[in-house]
Amino acid sequence: MKPLPGFRDLFPEDFARRNYLVGKWRETARRYGFVEFDGPTLESAELYRKKNSGGEILGQLYEFTDKGERAVALRPEVTPTLARMVAARHRDFPKPMRWFNVGTCFRYERQQRGRLREFLQFNCDLVGDATHAADAEVIALLIDLLRSFGFGPEDFAIRLSDRSAWHDFMTLHGVGKERATEFLTIVDRMEKMPAEKTEELLAPFAIPLATLREFITRAEIPVLAPLLADLEARGLRDYVRPDLGVVRGLAYYTGVVFEAFALHGGLRAIAGGGRYDRLLADLSDGSADLPAVGFGVGDAVLLELLKECPAAKLREEAALKADAPTQIYLVIADENHRFDAISLAQQLRGVGWRVGFPLGAEKVGKQFGNAEASGASHAVVIGVEWPTVKVKRLSDRHEESVPADSLLSWLTASGS
Amino acid sequence: MKPLPGFRDLFPEDFARRNYLVGKWRETARRYGFVEFDGPTLESAELYRKKNSGGEILGQLYEFTDKGERAVALRPEVTPTLARMVAARHRDFPKPMRWFNVGTCFRYERQQRGRLREFLQFNCDLVGDATHAADAEVIALLIDLLRSFGFGPEDFAIRLSDRSAWHDFMTLHGVGKERATEFLTIVDRMEKMPAEKTEELLAPFAIPLATLREFITRAEIPVLAPLLADLEARGLRDYVRPDLGVVRGLAYYTGVVFEAFALHGGLRAIAGGGRYDRLLADLSDGSADLPAVGFGVGDAVLLELLKECPAAKLREEAALKADAPTQIYLVIADENHRFDAISLAQQLRGVGWRVGFPLGAEKVGKQFGNAEASGASHAVVIGVEWPTVKVKRLSDRHEESVPADSLLSWLTASGS
Repeated sequence: MKPLPGFRDLFPEDFARRNYLVGKWRETARRYGFVEFDGPTLESAELYRKKNSGGEILGQLYEFTDKGERAVALRPEVTPTLARMVAARHRDFPKPMRWFNVGTCFRYERQQRGRLREFLQFNCDLVGDATHAADAEVIALLIDLLRSFGFGPEDFAIRLSDRSAWHDFMTLHGVGKERATEFLTIVDRMEKMPAEKTEELLAPFAIPLATLREFITRAEIPVLAPLLADLEARGLRDYVRPDLGVVRGLAYYTGVVFEAFALHGGLRAIAGGGRYDRLLADLSDGSADLPAVGFGVGDAVLLELLKECPAAKLREEAALKADAPTQIYLVIADENHRFDAISLAQQLRGVGWRVGFPLGAEKVGKQFGNAEASGASHAVVIGVEWPTVKVKRLSDRHEESVPADSLLSWLTASGS
Repeated sequence: MKPLPGFRDLFPEDFARRNYLVGKWRETARRYGFVEFDGPTLESAELYRKKNSGGEILGQLYEFTDKGERAVALRPEVTPTLARMVAARHRDFPKPMRWFNVGTCFRYERQQRGRLREFLQFNCDLVGDATHAADAEVIALLIDLLRSFGFGPEDFAIRLSDRSAWHDFMTLHGVGKERATEFLTIVDRMEKMPAEKTEELLAPFAIPLATLREFITRAEIPVLAPLLADLEARGLRDYVRPDLGVVRGLAYYTGVVFEAFALHGGLRAIAGGGRYDRLLADLSDGSADLPAVGFGVGDAVLLELLKECPAAKLREEAALKADAPTQIYLVIADENHRFDAISLAQQLRGVGWRVGFPLGAEKVGKQFGNAEASGASHAVVIGVEWPTVKVKRLSDRHEESVPADSLLSWLTASGS
């Protein structure tokens, strides 16, 4: 009676926490003028064979043959669907298109790595603008997203790099196009490898490790200047660290690449993205030849990060408390007035209050216990005094008698 | 470059419409104290073989063998997952549990019926209470849900029946337990069948059609009286029509059964549900032996219904307009002030406004065109007058000059 390994049951308290995340995702994206789209969970397997985010994904695909003999696959990422949709209808939309998606993705990852096989991902993509201004919008969105949880400059930073600087480096050192991915993969992994291993891998390229390190640690990255000036104007410069050590393993990036990472607890990557000016064309056989910049972030890493940051944790708890399942609990002290209570519940719900009451006769003390457990801020006691009711603020037991027919305006005025 | 047959691409305008639906689903459920849960999209196929909502479902299952040699299936419905989760943890929750789910489900339906193979379903279940008060809560929720879209008593009604009345009838006419499903299936379908066909199917039961019809059309259904009184107290009695002709084909219902149906355009069923006091126990091998009542509704039928009802359509359009991607558009009339504009955008977004601006130099006229296309209510012109800006209400071109540093409070006061 358990979910499959790598899959999650979201009980109401888990769902509320996820919903807090997703709410921030949507809210932040919308403040930047992004609109939400979604595609099918299941696609033709061929869509993922054309080209994909990383070599690993094909081996982790949930694929099978459907009852109509089609080779189909659960989506491992949303970008191929985005490319398909953009190719089909991009002429209908003014550019740039600011699109985001909150979607479930599936990858058959090895379980010993503790990875999920079904996870929720937030993707933001700005399509049809090749300028640094577009890069800045997307990076600012990511920074604001993390700030919306209460994370500050002591909690995270954005490492910022540019593939074009690496292309210049590769040209200078004779690394041909056909070996670019192999070379960048070495750079991507060198932080986690012993120096000897890196040197060994660099040997075929005839590039000394010292040369590589000097390039990475150099103070200025001229190509990033306009982007940094834009982020400075936004007051976000402090969150950003130019760092050529970030290349992101994915073969398809063409310009700026970035990675948000946590500053405590092991410098984990939280989110990553960059500019991919050729991917949409490649995925759509040329019919969506549009530049794009975007990022993705998963729910699991953010849930972990929230646990570790006290300020963000407090903010989350306050939000969850304000969002409690019940706001007002009707205590039925006299069963003769049950239908009066039900009618009152219906009126309160009709204007948007979240209202609970006992479905059968129960002792008043037990009802107050249930009222508190439900998260309600107020209990309304319906009894022999009807049509007058007693309103009790549960935080301090402050009590007031109110005529039932003015309860609505009383509650609105009290701003409970 | 299309989705698989029966699957949908949701472009932003489609997503906004679905989001309007889902927003009402969540809002209404929460007013009734329901909390959201979710389970995995993929489950062990065995979960669906135990028992399911209808015989059809097993034949429509998307099932396959995963890379770990497990027989798995995309969920065709959420109830088996609910049963699994309730069985695992129901001791942790006070009863009744009011749980709802908004989830994607998958069924390989024949395409000629125009059915979707991936659809979104809203399920509300009240678990752990066997009284009519619980039935009334769930039926009131369904009625309020439909009212929240602007549907009134001229648009829909709830047909209400009770399986226990049919059990009494079957006992009286010697229909044994083992043939109950077969018999109820005949009753369920007789509305759509010619009388001769029904008579033919009834023959083995030795029940004349006239006897059946008389039972269905009788004026009083005593078992429904408490439920109707409760709905009367809520002011919802007008929406409900007692009608024993509704049995719902599903074998598992044990008490009240109901169906919301549209009153124009062919009396289509919109949503259905009922009491199922043994299903959770059956699905969980006895570990969740709890009574329950609930209903389900899909997104496609509601989207259809919205199109047909002018009042609801108007309400939807107003909601979508208020929810436009952009509220405020910054027109950059002088590129020297681009960074001032970007900084202003950041401030406005920081307090929650949805703000757009051009990413590169553009003619002012074109920018105003983009402002209008974006759905913004106001354009803010940043030009040589900086640090004063011009605020233009796009609906009537009313214009005011405002110092940039008091724009925020100006916008808040204007309630735009």
